[in-house]
Amino acid sequence: MKIMVINPNESQAMTAMIEKTCAAYLSPDTQLYVRYGGAGMNSIEGFYDGALATPGVLRHIEYGEKDGINAYIIACADDTGLDAGREIATGPVVGIGQVAMHAASMLGAQFSLLTAQRKSIHVLKSNARRYGFANQCAGVHALDIPVLDLEADDADLNEAISQHAQHIVHTDAAEVLVLGCAGLSRYRKQLEVYLNLPVVDGLAVAITFAEGLFKAGLSTSKANTYRRAAR
Amino acid sequence: MKIMVINPNESQAMTAMIEKTCAAYLSPDTQLYVRYGGAGMNSIEGFYDGALATPGVLRHIEYGEKDGINAYIIACADDTGLDAGREIATGPVVGIGQVAMHAASMLGAQFSLLTAQRKSIHVLKSNARRYGFANQCAGVHALDIPVLDLEADDADLNEAISQHAQHIVHTDAAEVLVLGCAGLSRYRKQLEVYLNLPVVDGLAVAITFAEGLFKAGLSTSKANTYRRAAR
Amino acid sequence: MKIMVINPNESQAMTAMIEKTCAAYLSPDTQLYVRYGGAGMNSIEGFYDGALATPGVLRHIEYGEKDGINAYIIACADDTGLDAGREIATGPVVGIGQVAMHAASMLGAQFSLLTAQRKSIHVLKSNARRYGFANQCAGVHALDIPVLDLEADDADLNEAISQHAQHIVHTDAAEVLVLGCAGLSRYRKQLEVYLNLPVVDGLAVAITFAEGLFKAGLSTSKANTYRRAAR
Amino acid sequence: MKIMVINPNESQAMTAMIEKTCAAYLSPDTQLYVRYGGAGMNSIEGFYDGALATPGVLRHIEYGEKDGINAYIIACADDTGLDAGREIATGPVVGIGQVAMHAASMLGAQFSLLTAQRKSIHVLKSNARRYGFANQCAGVHALDIPVLDLEADDADLNEAISQHAQHIVHTDAAEVLVLGCAGLSRYRKQLEVYLNLPVVDGLAVAITFAEGLFKAGLSTSKANTYRRAAR
Amino acid sequence: MKIMVINPNESQAMTAMIEKTCAAYLSPDTQLYVRYGGAGMNSIEGFYDGALATPGVLRHIEYGEKDGINAYIIACADDTGLDAGREIATGPVVGIGQVAMHAASMLGAQFSLLTAQRKSIHVLKSNARRYGFANQCAGVHALDIPVLDLEADDADLNEAISQHAQHIVHTDAAEVLVLGCAGLSRYRKQLEVYLNLPVVDGLAVAITFAEGLFKAGLSTSKANTYRRAAR
Amino acid sequence: MKIMVINPNESQAMTAMIEKTCAAYLSPDTQLYVRYGGAGMNSIEGFYDGALATPGVLRHIEYGEKDGINAYIIACADDTGLDAGREIATGPVVGIGQVAMHAASMLGAQFSLLTAQRKSIHVLKSNARRYGFANQCAGVHALDIPVLDLEADDADLNEAISQHAQHIVHTDAAEVLVLGCAGLSRYRKQLEVYLNLPVVDGLAVAITFAEGLFKAGLSTSKANTYRRAAR
Repeated sequence: MKIMVINPNESQAMTAMIEKTCAAYLSPDTQLYVRYGGAGMNSIEGFYDGALATPGVLRHIEYGEKDGINAYIIACADDTGLDAGREIATGPVVGIGQVAMHAASMLGAQFSLLTAQRKSIHVLKSNARRYGFANQCAGVHALDIPVLDLEADDADLNEAISQHAQHIVHTDAAEVLVLGCAGLSRYRKQLEVYLNLPVVDGLAVAITFAEGLFKAGLSTSKANTYRRAAR
Repeated sequence: MKIMVINPNESQAMTAMIEKTCAAYLSPDTQLYVRYGGAGMNSIEGFYDGALATPGVLRHIEYGEKDGINAYIIACADDTGLDAGREIATGPVVGIGQVAMHAASMLGAQFSLLTAQRKSIHVLKSNARRYGFANQCAGVHALDIPVLDLEADDADLNEAISQHAQHIVHTDAAEVLVLGCAGLSRYRKQLEVYLNLPVVDGLAVAITFAEGLFKAGLSTSKANTYRRAAR
Repeated sequence: MKIMVINPNESQAMTAMIEKTCAAYLSPDTQLYVRYGGAGMNSIEGFYDGALATPGVLRHIEYGEKDGINAYIIACADDTGLDAGREIATGPVVGIGQVAMHAASMLGAQFSLLTAQRKSIHVLKSNARRYGFANQCAGVHALDIPVLDLEADDADLNEAISQHAQHIVHTDAAEVLVLGCAGLSRYRKQLEVYLNLPVVDGLAVAITFAEGLFKAGLSTSKANTYRRAAR
Repeated sequence: MKIMVINPNESQAMTAMIEKTCAAYLSPDTQLYVRYGGAGMNSIEGFYDGALATPGVLRHIEYGEKDGINAYIIACADDTGLDAGREIATGPVVGIGQVAMHAASMLGAQFSLLTAQRKSIHVLKSNARRYGFANQCAGVHALDIPVLDLEADDADLNEAISQHAQHIVHTDAAEVLVLGCAGLSRYRKQLEVYLNLPVVDGLAVAITFAEGLFKAGLSTSKANTYRRAAR
Repeated sequence: MKIMVINPNESQAMTAMIEKTCAAYLSPDTQLYVRYGGAGMNSIEGFYDGALATPGVLRHIEYGEKDGINAYIIACADDTGLDAGREIATGPVVGIGQVAMHAASMLGAQFSLLTAQRKSIHVLKSNARRYGFANQCAGVHALDIPVLDLEADDADLNEAISQHAQHIVHTDAAEVLVLGCAGLSRYRKQLEVYLNLPVVDGLAVAITFAEGLFKAGLSTSKANTYRRAAR
Repeated sequence: MKIMVINPNESQAMTAMIEKTCAAYLSPDTQLYVRYGGAGMNSIEGFYDGALATPGVLRHIEYGEKDGINAYIIACADDTGLDAGREIATGPVVGIGQVAMHAASMLGAQFSLLTAQRKSIHVLKSNARRYGFANQCAGVHALDIPVLDLEADDADLNEAISQHAQHIVHTDAAEVLVLGCAGLSRYRKQLEVYLNLPVVDGLAVAITFAEGLFKAGLSTSKANTYRRAAR
């Protein structure tokens, strides 16, 4: 099968990291198409960034339909353009923020979401409610660190992130931690050990769930909501 | 004060109608700026149309900020780009779908929403839930008539719309009808008489509420969610 | 048009303040009728006070109907007698607590409510849920200061109120503050500066929204719930 | 123990019927005090009637406190003045609408509510949500028969009510029927046989639950909400 | 009438205490049948314990049906086997956790739940939501003391429990405290004095409510959900 | 990896069908362990059956832990024993009812659930709410055909099921159909063609999601809720 993974922002580093993560989780017989956005942003912080990045995401899906892509992954925790994408895709379309919450809700009674910027808290909280996880999502918290700074490999930063996560998990009585920002993926293993809890990186789950939905013979419904507008 | 009304689609007829409606409800000392989108669509039907139309809406708000606009109205029942627009606006930003529901919830115990296309039902239902009107919104229904066909002035169509609305209101035990499509504005008076119920046209309410929020000294909060991303 | 503003309590100072606030926000062509309750209470604290004050509110609305009043405002954050009033009014009836929450929900992702007495917290929380703002209302808090003491003009009190509000807004991650007690109106400007957030005084919004609903041709629905009982 | 049962309306027939029902369910060692309202209404239909009847209910509770009443029952399905009554009562205060829903939710997965007038539907629906029974309450329906006409003993009426209830229960897939109007009490037995379902008359349950709460040593909490306002 | 009280665990001490509590609250003409589980556990901590204890609870109900039992009480705050039990019982079946929440919601605006082990928090929170008390239940907290240690009569433990409860009630702004563990019954009186709040012991309420439902002529609905499967 | 699939009932035909379905979806490097319950039931209909079948499910998981099983699937749409199973499993545990709803919510705006018996409606509805799908689940409906009769290969039955599903999907405006009974798996393809909608068979999804969660390095959280009770 063919999976397209779309990074809605233009960060090359992020795109490379996404490609690497995909390689680690992909089935041998899945062909991978990684794409990135073209709206000039290196990170998506809030609704405005998301709105500007969406047309680029949709363009990739339109090309993907011509290339026979079987499933799409939107590789941003905000699930940039998810509903719009489903209108033009034949196969399933999942966002990494969305599947991370789905997975977390099957692993523990409640989860916390950790994101980079305070601006993103409401976007994620609002998504959590929309997807149905109002009760399971015990809290959404920001590191207050610019997304791009997360790429530094720095012992102090590592320790600060671990402690912050610990504090959040304790406050929320969370049983699972969801990484609500693709830039946090590299801290997953470290946090899992530090917190002694499952830590969900949406991208890893998205790869396997997108493959799973396709293998189970499922596609996006073309009744009503996700039917293409007749013009 | 200065109000900008943005029609997210490119329909000239719709824009003219919006301008006319605004003129009827505007305070004498309010200056009106009517703008329309530039994404090539004559109507917004569903998430995909909305996503493509949003950058145009945002561009108008950015220009508006330079022109000292005090409040913005997004003149589409889907409230295209509402959250994103708030990030870049100083004054209040309201959508006509949103204020229509707010108004309806103050006039009767529950309301029905009537839209043109079935594709829009979920967009509106999802907005109703997000704004807090899950209990007040008794149903969202589609006429299954293309938005642009609503512009025809035709006795049969008029009667069909009235009967359809009657059926909806009866089924939902609705006490107020909300017009969930700008193209339905012209039927408001007719429906009010036919149904003997308040029928809410979001645009009329949006004008007066946007003026009201500004007069009450209120603006969009710049804490967290609607703060512009630092770059 | 004619608007009647009803202060459900008997405080002359409060009534004078209401009259003054109305004058500041009213359209030039609106005639104002300010009335106050007659149940012997100088403030409404809790359900019991509200229940005893309601018949007085309703009597004013009954007189108002004879005088051709076009819209009513109940000038208590508890929205004393709101639903009952709608049964006997032709035009729209809004409460200042209600419209304050409506306005706040259009200005930020979540708001906090500040009231005078702990007894009122549940009344306001329960109203917030009923109106649909369970998600938007991040918290309701009491100053634990008697309503009437708020009328003192005292530097220490001013500072205490500002600090208390700051604490609340921080704890709730609120983006808007709603004043849930008419006695707090005089602190609005001060709090807006101190908190750097929109601070909503329901009365100001109520004036403009009540005018707006009337100008938009809307009235209270007489289907089912708010139809007068046949006797 | 001493229980006061307050009929918020002035109907002598209803008061007599209440007294008779109480006698059938009361424990031998409970002293019964039946009181009725004094606001001139023979039935409570909607919010307005409820608001006018409330002060009379509260006055009885105030007298009751002097007489050492241990628990109060408000004998109207709308639970007229329930929250206000709790502020001035020491012992538990329950409404017959409220306890009927509590009981029904323990007997089947979902219940329907049957009331006399359409005006009361929203009052009851709103109460159901407030008490927590949004999911358990599958529907609220009106017979559209004046409350007082229910007192007629007429075979056609009996049959009509049974058929109407059958229709409601079928439509809602209800497993329990709740009588949402004191005037329907006399049909309980008949409906139970006809529908082959538990049919809950709130008054019967209220007597036993009020006795139960008192016997279990419980009283109304005087923290915050139901504490009497300090004056 | 005949009531069967089933302790789902095997603790003899707990069973004796249950018998003693029942004796204190039972009506003189009610015959009491106390039974205990047979799955080898001395306390029910979490879903797993609950699942293993359920068949024993059901067996007792099956015997009870042969003995003409009129109502059943499941004497564990987790309400072990409640839904399953209703399928095979004719009369009402209530759990002590369930009725405690019902009672608490009639005595104050919101309640806190106190249990022994952290494992039980989610079970109780999930039950609170299912029964409809998501808004009324302000928090569920654990003492982190093994259930069986609660049987010790120790001044230090008493003081620790009182202080812990005080802290919980303060944090949650709770107006009622619900004891979410049968082992806490013995602390009810002490806590009521210390907190100056109603403290609900489910067993006491269960006795009186079960009697009340039966006296009011009510039984478990045999429509759909609680109808025995046809085999 | 090793996956254990547990059929909570004793039906050999069902177990064989499960084994066959698994073979169709399993990754080549996954070892499959199919087990079936031992409580003497050939189908699980309602809470009582579920409660009696649960200990058998748990016993298989306990054995599985000794055999190094990496993920568990409970192959009943009621998700028999799901929470309890998570307390004793190291790897993820998913139910086929649960994952079917998760998948459906990613493929369309709302789904309908189809089950065999009316007794199961509330079990599934209650699960849908608990998992977070109250808004996405537009309705749960029963065929009113005994589970075992579904195994007949009969043209009339096939047609009846298709028509019934069509009716349900139309009534609910569903965009996806979820098969809420393992016995319906064999009708999936037929229904997908007939309805022109995605039709979700939980077992197929469960296989791929369970593999996916394990591949993504995730396991059941051992904080609080799903930690084994210390004894």
